[in-house]
Amino acid sequence: MIIDCHGHYTTAPEPLNVWRKQQTDALKAPTLSPAKGGVTISDDQIRDSLENAQLKLQRARGTDVTIFSPRASAMAHHIGDATTSLHWTEHCNDLIHRVCELHPDNFVGVCQLPQTPGVSPANCVAELERCVRGMGFIGCNLNPDPSGGHWTAPPLTDRFWYPLYEKMVELDVPAMVHVSASCNANFHTTGAHYINADTTAFMQFITGDLFKDFPALRFIIPHGGGAAPYHWGRYRGLAQDLKRPLLADLIRSNIFFDTCVYHQAGIDLLLRIVPAENVLFGSEMVGAVRGIDPETGHYFDDTKRYVDAATSIGEAEKRKVFEGNVRRVFPRINARLAAADVRSVRL
Amino acid sequence: MIIDCHGHYTTAPEPLNVWRKQQTDALKAPTLSPAKGGVTISDDQIRDSLENAQLKLQRARGTDVTIFSPRASAMAHHIGDATTSLHWTEHCNDLIHRVCELHPDNFVGVCQLPQTPGVSPANCVAELERCVRGMGFIGCNLNPDPSGGHWTAPPLTDRFWYPLYEKMVELDVPAMVHVSASCNANFHTTGAHYINADTTAFMQFITGDLFKDFPALRFIIPHGGGAAPYHWGRYRGLAQDLKRPLLADLIRSNIFFDTCVYHQAGIDLLLRIVPAENVLFGSEMVGAVRGIDPETGHYFDDTKRYVDAATSIGEAEKRKVFEGNVRRVFPRINARLAAADVRSVRL
Repeated sequence: MIIDCHGHYTTAPEPLNVWRKQQTDALKAPTLSPAKGGVTISDDQIRDSLENAQLKLQRARGTDVTIFSPRASAMAHHIGDATTSLHWTEHCNDLIHRVCELHPDNFVGVCQLPQTPGVSPANCVAELERCVRGMGFIGCNLNPDPSGGHWTAPPLTDRFWYPLYEKMVELDVPAMVHVSASCNANFHTTGAHYINADTTAFMQFITGDLFKDFPALRFIIPHGGGAAPYHWGRYRGLAQDLKRPLLADLIRSNIFFDTCVYHQAGIDLLLRIVPAENVLFGSEMVGAVRGIDPETGHYFDDTKRYVDAATSIGEAEKRKVFEGNVRRVFPRINARLAAADVRSVRL
Repeated sequence: MIIDCHGHYTTAPEPLNVWRKQQTDALKAPTLSPAKGGVTISDDQIRDSLENAQLKLQRARGTDVTIFSPRASAMAHHIGDATTSLHWTEHCNDLIHRVCELHPDNFVGVCQLPQTPGVSPANCVAELERCVRGMGFIGCNLNPDPSGGHWTAPPLTDRFWYPLYEKMVELDVPAMVHVSASCNANFHTTGAHYINADTTAFMQFITGDLFKDFPALRFIIPHGGGAAPYHWGRYRGLAQDLKRPLLADLIRSNIFFDTCVYHQAGIDLLLRIVPAENVLFGSEMVGAVRGIDPETGHYFDDTKRYVDAATSIGEAEKRKVFEGNVRRVFPRINARLAAADVRSVRL
């Protein structure tokens, strides 16, 4: 089985965007109430939105299941206040739940969190619990910079985040560290802000003692770990100068990188440098890069091809990357996939 | 000849730091005047500060000349006002000039700029001219984020920066894009802020039309280009989606990466992916990482070893990386080295 740990619902039906536009318009006209209201989307609209996108690409690329979350760039936690964020988040997560119910063999849910700049992440605990216990989600996306490129929150190793971490450990769900759209003109969203956030989080984890306090806490750093594997010598050297643990020990049970690196040389480096146990297959499909690489004739984000072609690890390790590690990092996926199996046997 | 394009005077004699402390202390006590004053350092102090550091390492590693600039993390453009920045910058650059006069075979100068958040880079033109025309410097370090981690300046492609670019083109000197210390708790200075700035600048250059306005403008993106080479497929794909030029065309005459990547796999990727014409040898020595890699027994930042061992490019291309490209990107180095040659022949 091949499990893609990183997919977003970037093709959600238009009524979701219409609702969001109304919500953000209402912020400019304070006479309108911030009612949550409803988003009317039919099952067929959901099926249509996936059929020629994620489902078609799963079939074409030979992947089985995608761990699926709301569109990351649209989380935009910097817009409005905590109520704005909560209403938007609930609608987005509800829609992911419907996707997973309609296609239980193809998608398993990961939730957006109702973060807001300056508001304690304790405010996210109820929604995480609703998604995991109530809707069978298996993880969350955690935005280390809810300000959208101004970086006003404390580092991820700060106690500010602990209320959320306590709930994550209790529920046994990991977080993917994932920023949203940048509203800072310096940072292109998918070309700079995403990658910088990955690099930033990794260095925060090196310098902090977070995993002493939470030995069972797990993070996926997406986009191949930002710059970390390319600069692995720099990070090993900095860790040594700072009298921190060896990187292999630091990451072992707590930090994982996905394979969202869109060329062979990058994946080759990742798999040559990072222990295979800490790499999870991911493609970010349909995501940041949509085109076909003229140098290969294949989609840039068809990362399975690069992993298949990599020679630095063998088949047993590749099976870990494609499936085993994902099941270990997202343990709740096992029950979901077993239930889907039972359901398809019954059909 | 082997020219290291990236060295900072991180071992400057203590009186420089004492002067800086007095200056920053005076900012807290407004009754003290912001006089520039003097920094008293003897030639022997300068020689001593280099002998067991940069000079010893040059000899041990078999490199010849270092393009040398003030300590990057100490530029701290966010401290004080434009006068603070100017006085500090002048002292730092004067000291680099003395280093280059004392060791003309070993060092060629690159200057710090008197940047200040919110102040036009036009304010840097006089100091650049003083350093280049008056003291034989061959380039400058340009901080894309004078705020020190808050990223409040416009992108490097904005007209805000054009007055400086006009002078750089007139003087035929490049800039290394180099941030300074981070005063944002999210960003470790050398482990996150430096690398993020490199990645950020690269994506700014992809999305902007700067080199249409300044075809002769040249930037070195240090630390191996941040995350860019590792994510080269992502950047090629984003450029394609955004209908921007091919990366190879975009960077050809304008953007160069150094080799400050501290492990073999990283350098192998860099030299496999980026055209050899766009890579300049650099080590950042003595810099961000000071230790010896227990996996190799050699200094992490002894990047010459990695380039020597790389197999994806041949000897002719390595000569470009070690010397030819540096002479092309920093053309004023040729006269400096010729003068040093004449001087050593006379001796």
